Amino acid sequence: MKFTKMHGCGNDYVYVNCFEEKVEDPSETAIKVSDRHFGIGSDGLILIKPSKTADFEMEMYNADGSEGSMCGNGIRCVAKYVYDFGLTDQKNIRVATKSGIKDLELTVEGEKVSQVRVNMGEPVFEAEKIPVLSETNQVIGEPVTVEGREYYMTCISMGNPHAVVPLKELENLKIEETGPKFEKMESFPDRVNTEFVKVLDRHTIQMRVWERGSGETYACGTGACAAAVAAITNHWVEDSPVKVKLLGGDLEIFWDHAENTVYMTGPATIVYSGEINL
Amino acid sequence: MKFTKMHGCGNDYVYVNCFEEKVEDPSETAIKVSDRHFGIGSDGLILIKPSKTADFEMEMYNADGSEGSMCGNGIRCVAKYVYDFGLTDQKNIRVATKSGIKDLELTVEGEKVSQVRVNMGEPVFEAEKIPVLSETNQVIGEPVTVEGREYYMTCISMGNPHAVVPLKELENLKIEETGPKFEKMESFPDRVNTEFVKVLDRHTIQMRVWERGSGETYACGTGACAAAVAAITNHWVEDSPVKVKLLGGDLEIFWDHAENTVYMTGPATIVYSGEINL
Repeated sequence: MKFTKMHGCGNDYVYVNCFEEKVEDPSETAIKVSDRHFGIGSDGLILIKPSKTADFEMEMYNADGSEGSMCGNGIRCVAKYVYDFGLTDQKNIRVATKSGIKDLELTVEGEKVSQVRVNMGEPVFEAEKIPVLSETNQVIGEPVTVEGREYYMTCISMGNPHAVVPLKELENLKIEETGPKFEKMESFPDRVNTEFVKVLDRHTIQMRVWERGSGETYACGTGACAAAVAAITNHWVEDSPVKVKLLGGDLEIFWDHAENTVYMTGPATIVYSGEINL
Repeated sequence: MKFTKMHGCGNDYVYVNCFEEKVEDPSETAIKVSDRHFGIGSDGLILIKPSKTADFEMEMYNADGSEGSMCGNGIRCVAKYVYDFGLTDQKNIRVATKSGIKDLELTVEGEKVSQVRVNMGEPVFEAEKIPVLSETNQVIGEPVTVEGREYYMTCISMGNPHAVVPLKELENLKIEETGPKFEKMESFPDRVNTEFVKVLDRHTIQMRVWERGSGETYACGTGACAAAVAAITNHWVEDSPVKVKLLGGDLEIFWDHAENTVYMTGPATIVYSGEINL
């Protein structure tokens, strides 16, 4: 099986061009290739396929073989793949995912895609829809006590639940201890992704993320969107664009208030191509 | 740069054929390719080069860019590489390493190498040479108290220091807590690799290893040798061969008493080949 290893801000997947390759059992293949010592090593497997409703379809499998619905870092790599490898010459493409069709805008430098803008949809504040158990309809800057320490939490869904928590500094944050405390709080029936945010200036925030079920990751696309929207809503920053500095790289978030839509712009990187006998 | 990803019992390296490729700055290249999210992902980089004194030379770099001297799992992969890719048709080859020339014996099945036997040299029991601080000349089955619990420890050097510790069971072993306690004991001026060993039958042991500076690993070739030699010396097993079951696979150890030489036999696996722009 021919494949290409790509990453978006350190979130790395094995990409397979299913216009040419056939992957019989993608779930089993994902488990096999994702293993970082015995396989290729990745966060999962992404199949790039023909689509009847969009330009391409992205089918995504996590490292444990479960099917994923959408990944903001992954879909940018899909866009780079199809353009750089000549599957399209368009700079505006539509990609079908399990979470619906996503519109992508490609920035091209020297015939290669350098940045991709993704329509990440609407931020949802209603507590019930996130879901977060609350006596109020929205959770914005609410105090919450975790292990004797008081935090202020803003809850937003970007298709998945997020709790955004501002901190004065992130360097000494023991995220392996604090992250799970938020993840498993009783107020989150579906658990939660937690973004710890430090404001750097009026258009820049720094963030570390604890993803439910995964732990700390280099980057979380929906988390960066939630963090930027929370930063604008709480007036920690002026307004869009908000640059979000993650462990794995920078993302730029633009919240279009008129459409109530969040756009994420970020890089996509080809690491290498290879061929594996499965 | 063309490369092949291989592993021996889960100990995985990026292998480069330096008869065809030139690696300008191997230390920097090792750091880059070893990164598991932004690079290829590996425990390090191994260059296969021409040698004036042996059939081949193996030059090894750890993931942090430092030069390694020898790796029992890595050298088996070197043997498989040079035979499977047609750089030799010999089944007994000599490979130069920073720890001297190693003799390898290849088992070939269906024109491919399935197992490789490596001469791992002499086990050293002298406390001073290991080094371990002791009032006795050798440390064999000596009681030692670590955090209030009594263990029995046998110390052996296989070119690097090992402490072999028998346990009734390994499943509940909290190696992240216990491993560093041994590693940092005052009696080991150069720190130590610790093998926790459970005897399964008269020719089989199971082992988990804590490598100094690395933590728990899937496999440690010199550690498997030390564990088997300790098992024979303490009469936990009958004699050679001793099968050592590691997290990443099985190794067979043969201690030739007449020559006082330890031979390790184990598998080597090609995962895939690829090409990366550095």
